Amino acid sequence: MKAAVLHDFDESLTKADFVSYENVPDPKIVKPTDVIVRVGGAGVCRTDLHIVEGVWRGYVDTAFPHIMGHENAGWVEEIGVGVESVAVGDPVICHPLVTSGHCLACRRGEDMHAEGSSFPGINADGGYAEHLLTGERSLIRLPQSLAPKDVAPYTDAGLTAYRAAKKAAQHLRPGEFAVLIGAGGLGHIGIQVLGALCAVEMIVLDKSDLALGLAEESGAHHTIKADGGEVDAVLALTDGLGAEAVIDFVGEGNSIENGLAMTRNAGYYYIVGYGGRIQIPAIDMIITEKTIVGNLVGTYAELVELMALADRGIVKLATKEYKLADANQALHDLHNGTVRGRAVLRP
Amino acid sequence: MKAAVLHDFDESLTKADFVSYENVPDPKIVKPTDVIVRVGGAGVCRTDLHIVEGVWRGYVDTAFPHIMGHENAGWVEEIGVGVESVAVGDPVICHPLVTSGHCLACRRGEDMHAEGSSFPGINADGGYAEHLLTGERSLIRLPQSLAPKDVAPYTDAGLTAYRAAKKAAQHLRPGEFAVLIGAGGLGHIGIQVLGALCAVEMIVLDKSDLALGLAEESGAHHTIKADGGEVDAVLALTDGLGAEAVIDFVGEGNSIENGLAMTRNAGYYYIVGYGGRIQIPAIDMIITEKTIVGNLVGTYAELVELMALADRGIVKLATKEYKLADANQALHDLHNGTVRGRAVLRP
Amino acid sequence: MKAAVLHDFDESLTKADFVSYENVPDPKIVKPTDVIVRVGGAGVCRTDLHIVEGVWRGYVDTAFPHIMGHENAGWVEEIGVGVESVAVGDPVICHPLVTSGHCLACRRGEDMHAEGSSFPGINADGGYAEHLLTGERSLIRLPQSLAPKDVAPYTDAGLTAYRAAKKAAQHLRPGEFAVLIGAGGLGHIGIQVLGALCAVEMIVLDKSDLALGLAEESGAHHTIKADGGEVDAVLALTDGLGAEAVIDFVGEGNSIENGLAMTRNAGYYYIVGYGGRIQIPAIDMIITEKTIVGNLVGTYAELVELMALADRGIVKLATKEYKLADANQALHDLHNGTVRGRAVLRP
Amino acid sequence: MKAAVLHDFDESLTKADFVSYENVPDPKIVKPTDVIVRVGGAGVCRTDLHIVEGVWRGYVDTAFPHIMGHENAGWVEEIGVGVESVAVGDPVICHPLVTSGHCLACRRGEDMHAEGSSFPGINADGGYAEHLLTGERSLIRLPQSLAPKDVAPYTDAGLTAYRAAKKAAQHLRPGEFAVLIGAGGLGHIGIQVLGALCAVEMIVLDKSDLALGLAEESGAHHTIKADGGEVDAVLALTDGLGAEAVIDFVGEGNSIENGLAMTRNAGYYYIVGYGGRIQIPAIDMIITEKTIVGNLVGTYAELVELMALADRGIVKLATKEYKLADANQALHDLHNGTVRGRAVLRP
Repeated sequence: MKAAVLHDFDESLTKADFVSYENVPDPKIVKPTDVIVRVGGAGVCRTDLHIVEGVWRGYVDTAFPHIMGHENAGWVEEIGVGVESVAVGDPVICHPLVTSGHCLACRRGEDMHAEGSSFPGINADGGYAEHLLTGERSLIRLPQSLAPKDVAPYTDAGLTAYRAAKKAAQHLRPGEFAVLIGAGGLGHIGIQVLGALCAVEMIVLDKSDLALGLAEESGAHHTIKADGGEVDAVLALTDGLGAEAVIDFVGEGNSIENGLAMTRNAGYYYIVGYGGRIQIPAIDMIITEKTIVGNLVGTYAELVELMALADRGIVKLATKEYKLADANQALHDLHNGTVRGRAVLRP
Repeated sequence: MKAAVLHDFDESLTKADFVSYENVPDPKIVKPTDVIVRVGGAGVCRTDLHIVEGVWRGYVDTAFPHIMGHENAGWVEEIGVGVESVAVGDPVICHPLVTSGHCLACRRGEDMHAEGSSFPGINADGGYAEHLLTGERSLIRLPQSLAPKDVAPYTDAGLTAYRAAKKAAQHLRPGEFAVLIGAGGLGHIGIQVLGALCAVEMIVLDKSDLALGLAEESGAHHTIKADGGEVDAVLALTDGLGAEAVIDFVGEGNSIENGLAMTRNAGYYYIVGYGGRIQIPAIDMIITEKTIVGNLVGTYAELVELMALADRGIVKLATKEYKLADANQALHDLHNGTVRGRAVLRP
Repeated sequence: MKAAVLHDFDESLTKADFVSYENVPDPKIVKPTDVIVRVGGAGVCRTDLHIVEGVWRGYVDTAFPHIMGHENAGWVEEIGVGVESVAVGDPVICHPLVTSGHCLACRRGEDMHAEGSSFPGINADGGYAEHLLTGERSLIRLPQSLAPKDVAPYTDAGLTAYRAAKKAAQHLRPGEFAVLIGAGGLGHIGIQVLGALCAVEMIVLDKSDLALGLAEESGAHHTIKADGGEVDAVLALTDGLGAEAVIDFVGEGNSIENGLAMTRNAGYYYIVGYGGRIQIPAIDMIITEKTIVGNLVGTYAELVELMALADRGIVKLATKEYKLADANQALHDLHNGTVRGRAVLRP
Repeated sequence: MKAAVLHDFDESLTKADFVSYENVPDPKIVKPTDVIVRVGGAGVCRTDLHIVEGVWRGYVDTAFPHIMGHENAGWVEEIGVGVESVAVGDPVICHPLVTSGHCLACRRGEDMHAEGSSFPGINADGGYAEHLLTGERSLIRLPQSLAPKDVAPYTDAGLTAYRAAKKAAQHLRPGEFAVLIGAGGLGHIGIQVLGALCAVEMIVLDKSDLALGLAEESGAHHTIKADGGEVDAVLALTDGLGAEAVIDFVGEGNSIENGLAMTRNAGYYYIVGYGGRIQIPAIDMIITEKTIVGNLVGTYAELVELMALADRGIVKLATKEYKLADANQALHDLHNGTVRGRAVLRP
C-alpha cells in the first residue's frame, strides 16, 4: 500500500520533506481481535510535528521507518476470527489506543491508562497510509450522518478537547468564567463542547485572528488577542479574580505562566498542550488552593459521547483536506499556522 | 397595607374567592437581620392551591388569617441594625427560606435543610401583599437587566426546576435522554435550564397543547401529548430502554407510575410535583438499580446561579401579570390550566 | 458431574427437598472466551430461596432442570482458545455476571448493566455442581491468602453489600450516622465494609440475637433488636433526626417503611433486600428531599476492591460449610435463620 | 493582658528570642458579631516560623507589633450584641478564619475562600496571648470530652491535614496506595484521618525516626526513612507504578520532585507544605494525566467533622505543652525538630 513514511527526526523542522510518500507492505491480521481499517481520513496533529522534532524521545520509542497518523477513520476491511461487534464494510472511527480490555483500568472504563496498550501513529504504524491495523475494542460504528474523512480528527484533537472540557464542565456553574487558550484544531472543538456541556461564560485567547474568528463561530463569548496584555484583559472581565477554569490547549511559550495567573482562587488549570514547563512556588498553590490537571486524550466511551454531539450537529469540525501524497504540505501548513481547524489526509 | 388574605381552607377548590383583598397591619423589623421588602411581584404557585385545599395540613401549620405568596421580589424598604449586605432601595429577589445561617446545613451551603428556618407564604406571612418581612440572608441584589415583577417566580418555580435539572445534568452525558413531565410554570424553566447545563436529548410530556407549545419554544427536542400512550412513545424514542433521567414536575395522577416506567435501568427519577404516591416493589428497584430523588426548592447559591442565567438571557420566564386585587382570578386560571408559564401578582 | 438440581418451584418452601443431588452432563467450552471452573465453593443465598419460591418469575426465565448457585469460586479447569488472562489451575473467584464487554455500559465499567449478559445460577446453570461454565471477563485470580471455599459468597452477598456501602461511604461524613438493617450474610459484610470506607457511626438492627452478636464483632457501634421499637430507638440515638444513610438488607416486612422513617432529611435510603414494596407519598419525598437508591450486585472492579480488603484481613466472611450433597440442609437452615453469616456448598 | 509579641523578622531564624513576652492592651468588642475568647491553648505551627522568616511578605501584610497564633481554643469571655449561637463560658475551638458569611463562597460552605475575611495570627492579632478577638461564625462548641488546650492544633494543623486527606479519600479505593510525606504536626493527623476515611494502604516517609515512630502509632502500614532512596522504596512497594495519592506535608527540599515521581499515572499529588517550588514539564503532566492539588486549611464544617472524629477517639493529637512565657522555647524546639506531634502554648 501507499503511505507517508517518516525516516528520521528533524529537530528544527526545516526540511522540505518530513515524510516520504512510498510503497510499504500491507498490514496483516495476527490476533483474533485484530481489525484492518481502510483509511478514509487521517488527521494531522501538532503531536506529529513534535514526533518529527524528536520531542517524544525518552517517552515513547519511535522505530524508523515509522508511519504517523493517530487520528483515523475509515471502513472495516478485514477482521480477526474473534471479532463480533463490527463487520467488514462498516464505517468506523478509531479510538487512538488499542487495548486488550483485561486490566483494571480498562475494566473501570479508563482505557487511556490501560496496561500493555499500543497507540498506532505513535508507537506503532498509523493512518498516514491506505490501511491501518487496529483492534476491535478501538472501533465505533459511525452513523450515516458522519463520513470518515470528516470526523477523523475527533479521535485525538476532538477527544482530548472533549475530555478536558468535560472535566471542567463538571464543576463550572452559571455565573462563572472559563478561559480557553488556543482556538486551533483542539481549541475550536473545546469551545463547542464546553458550550454544550455547561453554561459558563467563555473567554478565548489566541495569537491569530484567523483562530479568533473560528472561536467566535464556535461560540466564544469573548475573544482576546494574545499579544501580551491577555492576563490583564481576563482579569478585567472577571472582576480582577480570574476564571474558575482555564484550559490551555497551547502549553508552551508563556501560556502556562499566564494561564495559571488567570486561574481564580480555588479554580482549575487544565494543561492540554505541551512543550513548556509548569513552574509555580508551593506557597502560591496553597494560598490560592488551585488545582493543575493533566489531560490525556479520552476514553472510548467519551469518544462515543463526542460522536453523539457530532451526529446531532452540536459540535462541528473545521477541516481542510489534503491528499495523502501531500502530507508534507499539510505538516508545513500546520507548522506555519495557516490551517483553519484541522488538516486531514485522504488516501 | 393591602394584602390578599386566606381565611380558611377550601378542600374542593370550588369557592369563587379563595382569598380576600383587604387591609392588614404593616410588618415590623424585630431582629437586627430583619429586612422589609416592598413587593414588586409575587408568583402564584400550584402549592398555593394545595395550601387552600389543606394538603399541607400535618406537614406545616397554617395559622389563619394567612398571607400566601412564597415567590417574591421587590425593593428593600427597611433594614435591621445589623444588616450590611443590602441597602434601602436595592432591587432584590427573595430566596424563599429565612435562615440564621448558624446550623451545620447552612454552613455547608444547604440552606434548604436549615434548622429553625421560616418560609414566608407557607408558615409565615408571604408576598400576596404590599410589603414582606424577610431576612438579610435571603436577599440577592438584582442586576439592572431584571425587574422584580419579571423574576419573582424564579424563587420557587424557577429554583425548584433549576435544582432538579442541575442534579440531572451532573450525570447526563451526550447520547442520553431526559424526559420532563409537565411544561407549566416549573417545567418550562426546567427545560431551558437542562438544555443550558448539558447536551442531553429532551423529551417533554404534557396533557396540554398550550404547554407543549411552550415546551418547544423552551428547547424541547421532542414533545409528546400525555394522553395515555406516553410510556410507549418514550420507549419508542429510546430504543425501548427509557431515559437516563425523568424529571416529574407533575407528581400526581399516573405521572409517577409512568415516570418510573420510562426511567432506564441505572437511571434517575426526580420527583418534583406532588399529590400522588410512589409505589414500586423492592425487587423492581433492585433489578433496575434505579434511583428516586426527592427535590426541595434549592439553595441561595443556586438562586444566584439561576439569576446569572436569566441575566444573560439563557433562561426566560413566561409570565402573566395580575393585579394583587385580582389574586382570585390568578388562582382560578392556574387551577383551570389557562396560564401560560407563571402567574404573577403585582401590588 | 454431580449437581444439586432444581426441578420445580415450591411457593410455600415446605418441601423437605428443594433440590435433587444427581448426575448431570458436564459443561462444554463453546466460545473462544469460555472458561470452565472446577467449583471450590458455592454460596447459598436468600435469592436461591426466592428462586425456589418463584418470586423471580416474570423477571427472569428459569428453565427446569436448573442448577442454582451464583456465588462461585474455584480453579480454572479448561479455557477457550481466545483466553489470555487466566491459565488452567489458577484459583479464581467468579464475578456473577458473564459479559462480552462490547456494550457501552461495560466500556464505562458498569458491567452489571451489560447488554446480553448471562447470570449463572439465575438464568443459566450455576455452581451447585462440580463444574461451572463462565467467561474470561468474570474471573479474578485469588491471592494465596484466600481459598475458594472461603471467599465464594463475596461474589454476590459480599459484592452487593460492598457496592451499597461504597455508595453510602461516598457521602457519609464524620459526625453522621448510618443504619444497617439486617446483619446476616450481606449485612455482616456491609458493616465491615462501611466501617473500612468511612468514619460514620453505625447502628445495626436485626430481629435475631445471633445476628446482632455477629454485628458487634463486625464493628457495629450500636445494635438494636428489631422488635417494634426500632424507629424510636434510632431517633433517640440521632437527636430525633434519623440517619444520613439507611442500608436495608432485608427489604421486606416492615423494614422498608421503618427504614424510610429512620432516614434523615436530605438522607439516602438504600434498598438491597427485596420481597416488600416501597410506598411513600410524593409530598414526603419532597419535603424531606430524601433519595431512594436501588442496588444491583456490583461491578468487576468492585469485586477486585473487595478482594483487596479480604486479602488484607480488613473484611472477614463468616461462613458455614456444607457438602454439596447437603444442599437441602443448607437451604433449610438459611430459611430457618440458623446460619451465622453465609452457608457455602463444597463439592 | 500578657502576650508573646513579634517585633521584627529574623530571616535566618538565628535569634534566641523571636518573640517578646510582654503586656499588651486587651482586645475590644466592636462589631455585633465579635467574640472575645479566653485562650486555653494556642498551637505552634511551622507557618509561625515562616512568618518570623518573612516568607509571607508579599502575600500577607504583617504589621508589627504582631501577635502570632492561628490555632486557638478556649472559652467564650465576651460577646457582641448580635451573637446568638454561643454564650459566655462556652468551651470553644476557633476556626482560623473570621468571615461575615455574606459572600458566595461562604454561602456555598467554602469559608476558606471568603471575601474580606481576616486570619488572626496571620493578618490580625492571634492567640499567643491571654485573649483573642474572633467572630461568632468561627466558633464550634466543644464536647465535654475535649479540653481546649488539647485540641487547639486541630484548627490549622489538624484541619489542613483533614481537608487534604478527605480530598484523597474521595477517590482512593481498596487495593490502592497513598504516600504521606512528613509525619510531624500535620502528618500524624493526616495518617489517622486517611485511615479513618478510606481503606487505602498507607506508606509514610520522614527523615526522622521520632516521626516515623509516631507514624506507626498513627496507623501507617509502611514507614520509609527519607534518606535518598525513598522514590525507589515506594516504587518497590507499588509494583513500580507509584501511589494513587501522594500527600506532601513537607513541600520543600526534594519532597516535591520526589512526591511527583511517586505519583502513579492518573494519580493525585496534594501539596500541603510549602517553601519549595513545583516544576514539571507539561508533557509529563499530559502523558501521566496526573493532577496537582493545592490545599488551604479547611472549612468550618470540616472542622466540625474533625471534632467528631476527635470526640470519638478516632483521631488523637500528640501535643507537647509549653507556657505562653516559653513561646521562644517552643518555636526553637519546632525549628530543631524535637517536638513529637504539635507544640501548644498555654497562658
